[in-house]
Amino acid sequence: MSTSLDFPRVALLAGGVGGARLAHGFARALPDGGAEALTVVVNVGDDTERHGLTVSPDLDTVMYTLAEVGDEQRGWGLQGETYATLDQLARLGEDTWFTLGDKDLATHVVRTARLRDGQPLSAVTAHLAAALGVRARLLPVTDDRVRTLVDTPSGRVAFQEYFVRRRHADAVLGLTFDGAASARPAPGVLEAVHAADLVVVAPSNPFLSIEPLLAVPGVRDAVRATPARRVAVSPIVGGQAIKGPAAQVLESLGHEVSALGVARLYAGLVDVMCIDDVDAHLADPIREFGLDVVVTATVMGGPGGRERLARELLRGVGRAGA
Amino acid sequence: MSTSLDFPRVALLAGGVGGARLAHGFARALPDGGAEALTVVVNVGDDTERHGLTVSPDLDTVMYTLAEVGDEQRGWGLQGETYATLDQLARLGEDTWFTLGDKDLATHVVRTARLRDGQPLSAVTAHLAAALGVRARLLPVTDDRVRTLVDTPSGRVAFQEYFVRRRHADAVLGLTFDGAASARPAPGVLEAVHAADLVVVAPSNPFLSIEPLLAVPGVRDAVRATPARRVAVSPIVGGQAIKGPAAQVLESLGHEVSALGVARLYAGLVDVMCIDDVDAHLADPIREFGLDVVVTATVMGGPGGRERLARELLRGVGRAGA
Repeated sequence: MSTSLDFPRVALLAGGVGGARLAHGFARALPDGGAEALTVVVNVGDDTERHGLTVSPDLDTVMYTLAEVGDEQRGWGLQGETYATLDQLARLGEDTWFTLGDKDLATHVVRTARLRDGQPLSAVTAHLAAALGVRARLLPVTDDRVRTLVDTPSGRVAFQEYFVRRRHADAVLGLTFDGAASARPAPGVLEAVHAADLVVVAPSNPFLSIEPLLAVPGVRDAVRATPARRVAVSPIVGGQAIKGPAAQVLESLGHEVSALGVARLYAGLVDVMCIDDVDAHLADPIREFGLDVVVTATVMGGPGGRERLARELLRGVGRAGA
Repeated sequence: MSTSLDFPRVALLAGGVGGARLAHGFARALPDGGAEALTVVVNVGDDTERHGLTVSPDLDTVMYTLAEVGDEQRGWGLQGETYATLDQLARLGEDTWFTLGDKDLATHVVRTARLRDGQPLSAVTAHLAAALGVRARLLPVTDDRVRTLVDTPSGRVAFQEYFVRRRHADAVLGLTFDGAASARPAPGVLEAVHAADLVVVAPSNPFLSIEPLLAVPGVRDAVRATPARRVAVSPIVGGQAIKGPAAQVLESLGHEVSALGVARLYAGLVDVMCIDDVDAHLADPIREFGLDVVVTATVMGGPGGRERLARELLRGVGRAGA
C-alpha cells in the first residue's frame, strides 16, 4: 500500500519469544522505535489467572523485549528478578508452579486492577507499554477473553497447565480457542492490518500462537484482504523449533515438521515465506504452493540479528517499493 | 464465667501494634499458643484497597506478630522484607506512598483472590493465619465492609490517607465508620465475647481502633452483657501514646490525654482499668468512675514483657478464679 510516510508501516502478528524478538528487530529497524510504523498484534490465548491476577504471557514477553528489560536467557520475565512474593505465596499454601517474579508481579497487579476497573486489555496494555518506554504500538488481538485449551491423551487442559505445569510434554491431539468465536478484534487491529505496507507472521508457534490470533473473527480475513505484502517467517529451522514445542505440536497434529510443513499451513494467507538458509532446498517445493520465498538467516539471537532479519523483510516494501 | 476448660478463655479486642503485642502475650501465656483459649477480634476500619488489592493492616499486624514473623522494629509488615514489586509499581506509574513489601504482598494477593471468589474475610483470615502457624483464633470484627473516614481541617479523607500518606499530622475533627451501621459481627465474634472468662480491650487507639470495632452493631452490647471480667489496658502512659497518634486524637476530640481520659471513655464498658506504674496516681480518680484499677508495667516491649502483662491480666480469672 502506498503511504505518505517515509517508512513502511508494519503489522506483526506475534506470539511470545519469536514474535518478541522480531518485534524488537522492527523497532530497531524503523524510525523512533517503531512509534508510528510498527503495530504488534499479540496472541492472548495463553492468558491465564494466577492467584487472582490476570497474566498475559505473550503480551508481556513482547512488551518486556521491546522495552529491553526482558530476561533474554529465559525468554520470559524481567531481568534481575527476585521471587520473594512467590516464595511467600508457597508458604501461604498457594500452588506456585507458574513462576512469577516480584517485578513481573507489578505488571499483573496493575493489569488486574485496571481490568477490574473496567478498562479494556488494549488500554491497559498501552498504559503498561508506555510506562516501560515502548514506542511501538502493542495490541492484544482482542479485548475479549480467549483461552486456548489443549486436548492431550489425559484430557483437556488449560494452556498454561499444558505448557508450564506439564512442560509441554503431552501430545497435542487438538486445540480449542475458547471464546474466540464471539471475540471482536481489539480497536486498531484490523486497521493496522489494512493500513500496513507489510504484514508479518512472526516465527511463533503456528498452532499455539498464530492460530488463536487468526481465530478471532475478522483477523484472518483482514490478512487475506490487505493490500500489504504479507510474509511469514518459519519457526521451524532444519526440522526443529528454535524454542518451544512447535515441532512436537506440528507432528502430533499430523503436519510435516519443516519449513515446508509451515508453508503449507500459511499458503493462501501470505504471499512470501521466509525460511532459513539451512532450509534453502525447500524453496522450490514451497514455491509450488504459489508462495514467493526469501531465504536468509532467520535465527535471530541478539538485537543485531533481529534488526538484520527485520531489514531483510522490509526490503522492497514501503515508499521505496511502492 | 465458669468453664470446663483448665484455662480461662480470653477475647481480646484489638487494633494494630498494641493489640498485636498483647495478643502475642496471651498466646504465650495460654496453652498451645492460645489454640482454644484465645480469640482476637480485630478492627477492619483501617482496611484499604491498594493497586486493586485488599489490605487489612490491623489483621495482618496481629497475624504476623502471633506468627512471630512480623517486623518488630516498625510494628508492621514482615521481617526481612524486600520491595521489588513496589519499586516496579512505581515505574509503572502507580502511587506507592503505601509501602507494601514483597512478602506482605502475598498476603494481600491471596486475600484479594479469595474475597473475589466469594469467601468471607473471616474465612480468608483463618486460612492465612493457619498457613502462618497461628494457633489462636483471629477474627475480623465483621465480614462486611467498614471504612474509617477522618474529618480533618482540610476535609474528609480515608483512614490510610490520613494515617500513612499524611503521617497522621492532621487534627482529627471527627470520625465516621462508613458501613459500620449495617455491618454484622463476623461469625464467632459475639460468641467469643459471651463465652469468655476475660474480655480485654487492648492498648490500642480508643477512637481509631476500638471505636470502629464497637461500632459494629451487637459488639458493644456483647461486651456490656458478657459475664466475663472485662479489662481495658490504657494506651496512654505518662500522658503519651506508646505508638501512633492516640494522644493527638484524644486531644483534638476534646479528651484528656491520660489514662484517666481513657478510663472515662471505657467506663460503663469494662470493669477494670489497667494502667501503667507511672500513672499510679490516677488510680483513685479512675476508681471514682466505678472501675477497678490494676497498676502494672504496661509498656510491653518484647515477648517477655507481653507475656508478663497477659499473665497479670489473667490473674484471678478462669477456672481458678471461678
